[in-house]
Amino acid sequence: MPHTTASQPSNDQLATKAQAWSALFSEPMSDLVKRYTSSVFFDKRLWQADIAGSLAHAEMLAAQGIIGAQDHADIERGMAQIAAEIEAGRFDWKLDLEDVHLNIEARLTQLVGDAGKRLHTGRSRNDQVATDVRLWLRGEIDLIDGLLKELQLSLVEVAERNVEVILPGFTHLQVAQPVSFAHHLLAYVEMFSRDAERMRDARRRVNLLPLGSAALAGTTYPLDRERVARSLGMDGVCQNSLDGVSDRDFAIEFTAAASLCMVHVSRLSEELIIWMSQNFGFIKIADRFTTGSSIMPQKKNPDVPELARGKTGRVVGHLMGLITLMKGQPLAYNKDNQEDKEPLFDTVDTLKDTLRIFAEMIGGQVNPATGAKEGGISVNAQAMRAAAQKGYATATDLADYLVKKGLPFRDAHETVAHAVKAAEAHSVDLSELPLAVLQGFHPAIEKDVFDALSLEGSLNARNTLGGTAPAQVRAQLARHRARLAA
Amino acid sequence: MPHTTASQPSNDQLATKAQAWSALFSEPMSDLVKRYTSSVFFDKRLWQADIAGSLAHAEMLAAQGIIGAQDHADIERGMAQIAAEIEAGRFDWKLDLEDVHLNIEARLTQLVGDAGKRLHTGRSRNDQVATDVRLWLRGEIDLIDGLLKELQLSLVEVAERNVEVILPGFTHLQVAQPVSFAHHLLAYVEMFSRDAERMRDARRRVNLLPLGSAALAGTTYPLDRERVARSLGMDGVCQNSLDGVSDRDFAIEFTAAASLCMVHVSRLSEELIIWMSQNFGFIKIADRFTTGSSIMPQKKNPDVPELARGKTGRVVGHLMGLITLMKGQPLAYNKDNQEDKEPLFDTVDTLKDTLRIFAEMIGGQVNPATGAKEGGISVNAQAMRAAAQKGYATATDLADYLVKKGLPFRDAHETVAHAVKAAEAHSVDLSELPLAVLQGFHPAIEKDVFDALSLEGSLNARNTLGGTAPAQVRAQLARHRARLAA
Amino acid sequence: MPHTTASQPSNDQLATKAQAWSALFSEPMSDLVKRYTSSVFFDKRLWQADIAGSLAHAEMLAAQGIIGAQDHADIERGMAQIAAEIEAGRFDWKLDLEDVHLNIEARLTQLVGDAGKRLHTGRSRNDQVATDVRLWLRGEIDLIDGLLKELQLSLVEVAERNVEVILPGFTHLQVAQPVSFAHHLLAYVEMFSRDAERMRDARRRVNLLPLGSAALAGTTYPLDRERVARSLGMDGVCQNSLDGVSDRDFAIEFTAAASLCMVHVSRLSEELIIWMSQNFGFIKIADRFTTGSSIMPQKKNPDVPELARGKTGRVVGHLMGLITLMKGQPLAYNKDNQEDKEPLFDTVDTLKDTLRIFAEMIGGQVNPATGAKEGGISVNAQAMRAAAQKGYATATDLADYLVKKGLPFRDAHETVAHAVKAAEAHSVDLSELPLAVLQGFHPAIEKDVFDALSLEGSLNARNTLGGTAPAQVRAQLARHRARLAA
Amino acid sequence: MPHTTASQPSNDQLATKAQAWSALFSEPMSDLVKRYTSSVFFDKRLWQADIAGSLAHAEMLAAQGIIGAQDHADIERGMAQIAAEIEAGRFDWKLDLEDVHLNIEARLTQLVGDAGKRLHTGRSRNDQVATDVRLWLRGEIDLIDGLLKELQLSLVEVAERNVEVILPGFTHLQVAQPVSFAHHLLAYVEMFSRDAERMRDARRRVNLLPLGSAALAGTTYPLDRERVARSLGMDGVCQNSLDGVSDRDFAIEFTAAASLCMVHVSRLSEELIIWMSQNFGFIKIADRFTTGSSIMPQKKNPDVPELARGKTGRVVGHLMGLITLMKGQPLAYNKDNQEDKEPLFDTVDTLKDTLRIFAEMIGGQVNPATGAKEGGISVNAQAMRAAAQKGYATATDLADYLVKKGLPFRDAHETVAHAVKAAEAHSVDLSELPLAVLQGFHPAIEKDVFDALSLEGSLNARNTLGGTAPAQVRAQLARHRARLAA
Repeated sequence: MPHTTASQPSNDQLATKAQAWSALFSEPMSDLVKRYTSSVFFDKRLWQADIAGSLAHAEMLAAQGIIGAQDHADIERGMAQIAAEIEAGRFDWKLDLEDVHLNIEARLTQLVGDAGKRLHTGRSRNDQVATDVRLWLRGEIDLIDGLLKELQLSLVEVAERNVEVILPGFTHLQVAQPVSFAHHLLAYVEMFSRDAERMRDARRRVNLLPLGSAALAGTTYPLDRERVARSLGMDGVCQNSLDGVSDRDFAIEFTAAASLCMVHVSRLSEELIIWMSQNFGFIKIADRFTTGSSIMPQKKNPDVPELARGKTGRVVGHLMGLITLMKGQPLAYNKDNQEDKEPLFDTVDTLKDTLRIFAEMIGGQVNPATGAKEGGISVNAQAMRAAAQKGYATATDLADYLVKKGLPFRDAHETVAHAVKAAEAHSVDLSELPLAVLQGFHPAIEKDVFDALSLEGSLNARNTLGGTAPAQVRAQLARHRARLAA
Repeated sequence: MPHTTASQPSNDQLATKAQAWSALFSEPMSDLVKRYTSSVFFDKRLWQADIAGSLAHAEMLAAQGIIGAQDHADIERGMAQIAAEIEAGRFDWKLDLEDVHLNIEARLTQLVGDAGKRLHTGRSRNDQVATDVRLWLRGEIDLIDGLLKELQLSLVEVAERNVEVILPGFTHLQVAQPVSFAHHLLAYVEMFSRDAERMRDARRRVNLLPLGSAALAGTTYPLDRERVARSLGMDGVCQNSLDGVSDRDFAIEFTAAASLCMVHVSRLSEELIIWMSQNFGFIKIADRFTTGSSIMPQKKNPDVPELARGKTGRVVGHLMGLITLMKGQPLAYNKDNQEDKEPLFDTVDTLKDTLRIFAEMIGGQVNPATGAKEGGISVNAQAMRAAAQKGYATATDLADYLVKKGLPFRDAHETVAHAVKAAEAHSVDLSELPLAVLQGFHPAIEKDVFDALSLEGSLNARNTLGGTAPAQVRAQLARHRARLAA
Repeated sequence: MPHTTASQPSNDQLATKAQAWSALFSEPMSDLVKRYTSSVFFDKRLWQADIAGSLAHAEMLAAQGIIGAQDHADIERGMAQIAAEIEAGRFDWKLDLEDVHLNIEARLTQLVGDAGKRLHTGRSRNDQVATDVRLWLRGEIDLIDGLLKELQLSLVEVAERNVEVILPGFTHLQVAQPVSFAHHLLAYVEMFSRDAERMRDARRRVNLLPLGSAALAGTTYPLDRERVARSLGMDGVCQNSLDGVSDRDFAIEFTAAASLCMVHVSRLSEELIIWMSQNFGFIKIADRFTTGSSIMPQKKNPDVPELARGKTGRVVGHLMGLITLMKGQPLAYNKDNQEDKEPLFDTVDTLKDTLRIFAEMIGGQVNPATGAKEGGISVNAQAMRAAAQKGYATATDLADYLVKKGLPFRDAHETVAHAVKAAEAHSVDLSELPLAVLQGFHPAIEKDVFDALSLEGSLNARNTLGGTAPAQVRAQLARHRARLAA
Repeated sequence: MPHTTASQPSNDQLATKAQAWSALFSEPMSDLVKRYTSSVFFDKRLWQADIAGSLAHAEMLAAQGIIGAQDHADIERGMAQIAAEIEAGRFDWKLDLEDVHLNIEARLTQLVGDAGKRLHTGRSRNDQVATDVRLWLRGEIDLIDGLLKELQLSLVEVAERNVEVILPGFTHLQVAQPVSFAHHLLAYVEMFSRDAERMRDARRRVNLLPLGSAALAGTTYPLDRERVARSLGMDGVCQNSLDGVSDRDFAIEFTAAASLCMVHVSRLSEELIIWMSQNFGFIKIADRFTTGSSIMPQKKNPDVPELARGKTGRVVGHLMGLITLMKGQPLAYNKDNQEDKEPLFDTVDTLKDTLRIFAEMIGGQVNPATGAKEGGISVNAQAMRAAAQKGYATATDLADYLVKKGLPFRDAHETVAHAVKAAEAHSVDLSELPLAVLQGFHPAIEKDVFDALSLEGSLNARNTLGGTAPAQVRAQLARHRARLAA
């Protein structure tokens, strides 16, 4: 049994994937299998994380004396060249090399020889890929955090201009009570601020280092894992190697948070679409967010909100896919896990694009000439007001009025129901009934009832924390401004 | 109000998407919006269906006298050139033109002028895209039908060679009763044959023509929709135009059928993975379906079954996404529907690749030199047999033996439980207990009990329809051969 | 080793679950475990199927000479008593006996002694439960088929009264083209008729007999499985015993069909809710399908459509749960499968209740005094018409008019866009522009253009198969009447 | 229009639901509609939260002078009686009263008259139900937190007894490297500790007060919402009334966290099931967590882990149902939201039962006589060791050995692959190859190689943070003990 073959593999040993596996394998992969099992065409987007992780690993290996200073220098030089090649679009990604990791390592070995082969000391692709995905996702979460802030700011800006604009608040899509349009928009600010909180919570569990878990059991080399974590800006290390290589909780948790965010987007989209329908006519969005019809010349369709509502399904589907993926897997790493990437990548892309486009669609974009934002949604306050005057939006105010006159709430409620029935029969609003008629429902009613029955009266009266009174809305706007400036 | 601009648009009017929408739009789309709303980079795969649909539409328009013979000839000529360009990779797909339909129509108009502009008479993109997707999916279902047949044949072939090979049948992954390995494989043939049935059922609802529904309400032109359906090989027309443009049931039904098929694949994969683990060692798959480890030199991992198990999540996620997409949409077409394509396309791709690779991994591939299949799974009959001899696999046979001697089943069951307890205490199989000891559990036991307690005796005894006795298994094999040859 | 204990178990041996398992078990189950693993409190609804299956099994055992005539008679007598007890609410369901099967069998043995113990000959709970669920589900599918027909009839009846009622057809919730309200309702008839088709397709795969598969491998008794299938009205037998006990495709396929049906319900609900909002006011539903508010006296909320829309999520969740359940399970039966029942039961209940309530909410209920239906949705034709006159619903008709005058469609489309822009600027409909102004957009326009621009003109013009012209709608109504009467 | 009817409703006005809605309604609900829309039979479990919320609300109303001291006292007295009635099972829940809120309020009014009617001042069922669910869920999260701690402690206890027990670590279910059984169990402790973290994060968003949002817009009464929040132990108030009544993020976030936890349970279950199969035989669980077979006398099936694996589907289904429920809902409250409860309740029940049963199944239960835990999983260290000696588990150690002798890792990997191939050909382990043969693969190999090739040598060598070396495992055990004692 000669050792020559084994001890002198060429620098091209990684040149094809099948050879990479070792002498144990009696046949190369077929093209179909390669295509089925390879990930390089989607995981190459991890290249920056992969190089960053490798550099931190190499630096530590050198600091620990596991590799020499020259090897370390060679690796740094090689990686710099590889990064340049990739950025320039000159890197030759090979399906045969299966994934981003082997592609980069093979090129490194080609460039710097044995130092490249030493880079993999004390690690495995199992912990390497987990590290790469976490590093990449951490960066994306930070971008998403910024986009969520921009979207909230857009909503706040539009709200600031519409504190006194009254639209009918709906429950069950039936007219309920008058609300400030600003107040309505701030409900979405609450939602997106919770999304940002959840993203930050998820980030704490993303930003931990699996590297050093090696294949599954840790490694025999005296690694300093916490040094690597520090140099990568991570909050700590994964404390159990089996968990380190097999855990995909962070991907699922992120996708669940993204799904909730898309649910919020879908709710806002639903409202924008309804508000834009001719029977409502509450708002318009700028033409560039709409499309026409190939057949109906009059059409301007709210494509962007509709697509966003549709893309909610896409992200939710990814969440379902990821959970199904992990269900019932024994420890530690299984190849199933490779399927975590495409849904995660697409979730990130979809969420970022959606948040960016919504921030602009709602709030408009800065006109460089004036520095002011232009082209956000335009509000038809008149149509909103007209709609708020339908549907007896102030009936509750009449009931509250009666309670203040001493009726128990339940009795007041019933009294007003009779009044509404009578008004309906005459096709008039409550405020259009003569005082005498109103007094017929209850003798305690006096002339000041008409204040309660006006839209403004109703709005101003809801002046407790969280209510729609302009004073409350302005306080909330100030709170959000301060929070978002932090 | 001069009509000149309107009546003399240039042939380039479709050259950018924003212009396509008409004079109503005051600003072009931003790049972000274009990217968010365009579908051309994934829907261009529909080009053959799009051209086929357009040609059938044009032929009918001419036959009905809606367009002239020269226009029809021009359209045919233009489409032939476009098809050639696309096949040759020379077609210039433009993001600005949003989708496959406008790309092709714009090029047609460029090539043949007014005839191209007349093609869209009596149709809309809403019915056009529904037609394209149905035509394309019908073709894919037919391919999948073939792949399901191939996979079933592979399983049948391996089964034919393993009728007498005994492995432990499990319930709860605990040894239950001996079964023929062929019988076990035929359970999957049943599953995949049901999948093929479901695909055929779905096909009947896919293969109907929406074209002629126009935007949503039908058209003012005297179309002959049934003529178009016939020329496209469709089984009929959609009978309601609103439903025709908004229905995506067929995509969901197909994806549900695909999900079930992937669930079957995942079950088979789970078994292959367990059977390949060192503690089982029942089978091997060829090296080209496995991969090694970057760190552990001894590894051969069953990557393909693991990935297939993982890809089940992917397809199930698409099903969830599509259902979420359609939930709560008002009639008729909404832009949300554009999101039907990517999950559908990916489901088709994933299913086809998986079926193809499984057919080869199970049954091997034809060696052109010999005409024989090689490289399928290899079976370790000895390991299977050894495992079947653990776990008191023939205990039920002893109970049945006692029933035949006159005991009620429940009493026989209890008697055998005592025997198993005693055998366990001595770490021996039931068949290794001396006759006298067995008779201690019940006096009716005689020497012929050992026939019942042998693996072969147990197997042969289950000789009713659907049972594991070799005679039954051979009958099933013959049935499947006949069915699959049909 | 005395055999007395084993050969003389008391008739109470099944009295507690732990004892049922046999002498092998050293400790009884804890209450928590019992509660966790028992199914009797939800699977007792299978009792009729369980008894029917047992009777068919016993009849066959007797016919095959496996049990005696007296045993058969005893079993029939005992089962008759048990059925009477259950129907009368006098049956004592015991958690200790885990499931419906053991509860009934234990009671049978209590009533008729050894004959009861012989009933389980040649079967296992694995094939028994699969048989029960299939029998039960077949019956439910038949009920659902009837409910789907009733709902379609309700829609057809309302449609028949509203052929000439015009509402704006929407795409993207923007006014598109005028459509007949009947035509709109018939789109849902198409959906529910597809649902019925899918249910019937699923039924073929449900209505097969697993009994005789025994635990997993078939049985040593000379069963006549086809006899049992015939006596239970089933279409055939499961051909592979491993598949027979482990297959739950039928539950998933049914739940997928139910999910699609609920998606249709959710779309109809969404429309009802929008149509009932004050800004639309197209329809009303009867008060008994609405609820009020505890605080807002004027409210009538469309609770039933909203709940139905919400329950879509419930059914879809069950589908996802069932798929997740089966993913990656090795053959044959695993206890996981017990979790198939609750989602399946709840899906059936939800779907049936929803279909029943929708049939009545849409079409009303028969007044026994008059024999006529009363209390279905009421239609505000005036509000629909007013809405159809917004949004330039006949713009496509103007384009088609120009095409008939010789313009290529794309040019006509652009011309009309200019006309719409001008009309919008003057806040008038196209039909309100003077002829001279219209002629300014194109000289070919003549006086007859106003026919094309009227709602009725537009409607009548869409007179091809599947279009909204009243003549087409009436033909469809006749087709549905004939189909539903079959 | 006489006001007498309105102003003198009887105390029974809430006695039936239809009447509750007010004089506006012309007909009562049908029984089917009542059953379809009522929630009392599942939401009555919220009664404690409902009463607690009402008492806090009443106390604040009194403190603010909105109701009188006598009313407040009456409400407290009435509620005390109601709580007593419910606890005693004497409360008469009425379907006609739709939900827990109206049932309790109606009874209160019956008991204390007008004071009961005044309780609803300044609130609506919309904010009341949101408050109830949040209060209830907060309590359940705290219980789950305790159960997660118990389960972690059980795992830690078993781990403490098994630090030196070696089993084969798997990747791809193929033997990878030897690991400590304790280390393996601690991977699950990591998972469950993350689950607890996520629960605590979710709790912060659950524990906020919607009360005071009223129907959707806030209220006209001078409420002190922060006082109510404080008295209910909540962390703050919902800042936007529209969001307060419509937000169900907290239910989805909780269910997502529960789904992840169940995924972890399913992974552990999968391993327990595999480990218990006869071909592994690594562990046993106590008989009371297993069941037998009605047909196979020898069976002891791992029912509890299988059911738990199956119940993962159930919880995941609920997550998908909840997301589907909320997708696309316009603001504010819609009746769809009522469908949030059953999935949420069932998720909580399933998770709690599962965690409790797993804690006991893994770690056993305290024997009151001895104070020691008994009946947890029993470990077959011999079987684990035997399995670890298969599959060349120490091949990586040989590669690492060579790296320490100066080979680049990639070359060492290839060298070892040749050695494994040779050992496989002779069916021996690497450690069974003579030194001379090993040296044939590389001359640097010396006698100390056999230390590296032993299971203990391999284990001890992985002595970095997170690795499987006993020293590391003991450090982790200490960390977990300290953490869980906190």
